[in-house]
Amino acid sequence: MNFKFMIGTKALFGKGCIESNKAIFKEFGKKAFIVTGKNSAKASGALGDVVEALKECGIEYSIYDRVLNNPTLENVKEGGDLAREFGADFIVGIGGGSPLDASKAVAVLASNNIDPVDLYKNVFENKPLPIIAIPTTAGTGSEITPYSILTRNDLKTKKSFGNEDTFPAVAFLDARYTESMSYQTTVDTAMDAFTHSLEGYLGRRSTPVSDILAIEAIRIFGECIENLLNNRLDFEVRERLLYMSMLGGMVISHTGTTLIHGLGYSLTYFKDIPHGRANGYLVREYLKYNYEAAGEKIDNVLKLLKMSSIDELGDIIDKLLPCDLTLSKEEMEMYAGLAMQQRSITSNARTVAEEDLREILRKVFNDGGK
Amino acid sequence: MNFKFMIGTKALFGKGCIESNKAIFKEFGKKAFIVTGKNSAKASGALGDVVEALKECGIEYSIYDRVLNNPTLENVKEGGDLAREFGADFIVGIGGGSPLDASKAVAVLASNNIDPVDLYKNVFENKPLPIIAIPTTAGTGSEITPYSILTRNDLKTKKSFGNEDTFPAVAFLDARYTESMSYQTTVDTAMDAFTHSLEGYLGRRSTPVSDILAIEAIRIFGECIENLLNNRLDFEVRERLLYMSMLGGMVISHTGTTLIHGLGYSLTYFKDIPHGRANGYLVREYLKYNYEAAGEKIDNVLKLLKMSSIDELGDIIDKLLPCDLTLSKEEMEMYAGLAMQQRSITSNARTVAEEDLREILRKVFNDGGK
Repeated sequence: MNFKFMIGTKALFGKGCIESNKAIFKEFGKKAFIVTGKNSAKASGALGDVVEALKECGIEYSIYDRVLNNPTLENVKEGGDLAREFGADFIVGIGGGSPLDASKAVAVLASNNIDPVDLYKNVFENKPLPIIAIPTTAGTGSEITPYSILTRNDLKTKKSFGNEDTFPAVAFLDARYTESMSYQTTVDTAMDAFTHSLEGYLGRRSTPVSDILAIEAIRIFGECIENLLNNRLDFEVRERLLYMSMLGGMVISHTGTTLIHGLGYSLTYFKDIPHGRANGYLVREYLKYNYEAAGEKIDNVLKLLKMSSIDELGDIIDKLLPCDLTLSKEEMEMYAGLAMQQRSITSNARTVAEEDLREILRKVFNDGGK
Repeated sequence: MNFKFMIGTKALFGKGCIESNKAIFKEFGKKAFIVTGKNSAKASGALGDVVEALKECGIEYSIYDRVLNNPTLENVKEGGDLAREFGADFIVGIGGGSPLDASKAVAVLASNNIDPVDLYKNVFENKPLPIIAIPTTAGTGSEITPYSILTRNDLKTKKSFGNEDTFPAVAFLDARYTESMSYQTTVDTAMDAFTHSLEGYLGRRSTPVSDILAIEAIRIFGECIENLLNNRLDFEVRERLLYMSMLGGMVISHTGTTLIHGLGYSLTYFKDIPHGRANGYLVREYLKYNYEAAGEKIDNVLKLLKMSSIDELGDIIDKLLPCDLTLSKEEMEMYAGLAMQQRSITSNARTVAEEDLREILRKVFNDGGK
C-alpha cells in the first residue's frame, strides 16, 4: 500500500451554501476578481448570489465574463492581466469546466506576470491567488481538482497544468445553479463526471481512497441513468449528479485521467464535440480494450451499474449520446498521434500503442458510422 | 444533501514514505521542533528516520520528548515555550495520540504566547506553526484530524480543541513504525480507530463522504478481527490497521465523536484505562442503546463485519479486551454527569439523557462485574 491523499479544497455542499457561508469571502481579502463565461453564471443565479454576498461583505469586485468555451492561453492571459491591474486579492470562478479551469490560470497569472505557456512549468515564483470555485454544471469536478485544462492552439490540443497550490481554496456546490443547464448539457457533463471516476478507478494511478470515492460515484451514476434517459431531472437528481461530479473530481485529483480523456480532446479541438460527450462516445471501446488488463474492476463497474455487459452500458450511452460523427483515416491517425503525447495515456490500465488508439477510433467513428 | 468536506492534511502512506519524500521538510523552514514521548518514537524507528531526513535537508532541530501519556495543559505549555524560544519554523509530532495531540497544542502555543486554557477559544491571533505528524500507533487518526485532546485537571476530564488551522500539513504513515507496539496496545488502538468510524457513521453529524470512508474502515476492521484475536500481526495487517485508522481520522474530522468517547474519557481520567480500550468496553451497550435511532445503519455495520448480532460483536470485543473493572454508584453518577458536559454527546444518534449514561455504565461495569 503506497499512496498520497490530498484534497486542498474545502467543499461546501447544499442549497443556499453561498448565502449561509458568505462570511468566508472575507477571509480572502477585499478585492475579488470574478472569472466567468458570457451566460451560465448569470442564468444559473450563481453570479447574482456571489455579487450579493460580496456586497454584504463590503468586498470590491470586478467581473471578467469573457472566458471562451475551451479557453485558450490568450484568453487566460487577458484575464490574468486584468486581475493584476485590478489588484485582486482572490479569484472567484463561476461556471462549467471552462470558467473554472480558466480561473485557476488567472489566479496564477495574476500573481505571476509570466508568459501563459509557462503555466505548464507548474512551478511559480509567487503563490497563485486563492480561488473560490462555483460550478454551474455537474461534470467537470474542477471545483475540487488542481487541474486547469486549456486549449493549446500551438499543439492543436487541450493540455492541463496544475499543482497543489491550484486547488480552489473553497468550492460552493449548490445544485440550484445546475438547473438552468439544457438537457443535452446535463447529459454531456454527467458523462464527463462518470468517465472521471471510471478512468480513475481503472487507471494505474488509482489509490485505496480514490477507489472508494470512484465506486460510490459510479454507483450513483447507475442510479441516475433512468432519470437521464427520461429527462426527469428534479432537484434531488441534480444534487446527486453534482455530488457524483464532486466525487469524480476528488478521484482524478489523485489518479489523473487516462485513455478516454487523452483521445477525447481531439474530438473537442477539431470537431467541436462537447468534452463530456466526446468522452462518452469512447466508453464502450475503452472498456473492451482494457478488459484484459482490468477485467475484475470492469466487472465491478458493471455490477455497480446493475448491468450485465459492456455492450449493455454502451447501448445506453448510445441512447444518451446519439453519434453521427465519422472520421477519415487521416483524422484518426492524427488524433491517435496527438493522444500519445498526452501524459494521461501512460496511466491507462493497459499499455497503449498508437495503433490501439487508431483501432479504437475506427471502431467508434468509422465502423459503419455508428 | 448538505455537508462540508475538508481534510487539511496531505497524507503520504507507505513503507519508507519519509525517506522517499524527505524534501518536503524543506518546504516548512529551517528549524524543526520535534514533539514526542519518552519511548515509542525511538523504539519505532520513526525518530531516527526523521532526524536523518532533517540532517540531510540541513534543517536544525530540537527534540522535546517529555509528552505525557494523556498530556496536560501544563505539559503542552512547556513544549510551546521551548518551541518559541528555539525559534521553530515547524513542529514534527511523532508517536501515538498523546504526542500528536500535544504537537498541535505546541504548534499553537509556539506562535501565540497565551494561557493554554485559551486553546479552547479556538481562535488564535497568529496561525499555528505547520505540523508534520507521524503516527506510531494505528488508532488515533490524529495525524489527519484537527483535534487535540488534552487532560483538563481543572475539569477532571479530557477535552478537545482544534480548528481548520490545526490539521497537520503533512502526515507520514509508515506501518513499520507501528510494529514496535505491544499486542495489547495494538488491540486498544485498533478499537479506538474502529469506534471513530462507528460513532462517526451512526452520529448526527455524519455526511455522505464521511459515510463512504466509515463504511470502508468498518469493513477493514472486520477483516482484521481474526488477526487481532490470534495476534497474527504481520506487516500487511499492520498496514491495513494503519489505513483503517487514517480513514477513521478522516471520518471524525467531519463528524466528531459521540457517546462512546464522551463516556470513555472518565474511564481514562479516573481509572487509567487506555483510551481505545475504554471505548471498546462501551461498544456493545452503545449499539444496543442507539438501535432505536440508528437501527438500519447498525444492521449495516453488522453486515460489514459479517456478524449476525450486536452480542456477537460484543462477545468478540470481550475476548479482545477482557474487563474486570467495576464501578461504584457514585463513580457512575459522576462519570455520567461529566460526559453530559462533552459537546460530543449532542452528536449521538439517540438524544442522550444523563440517566441513560448511568444505565449504560451500570450494564457494562456493575452488572455482575462483566
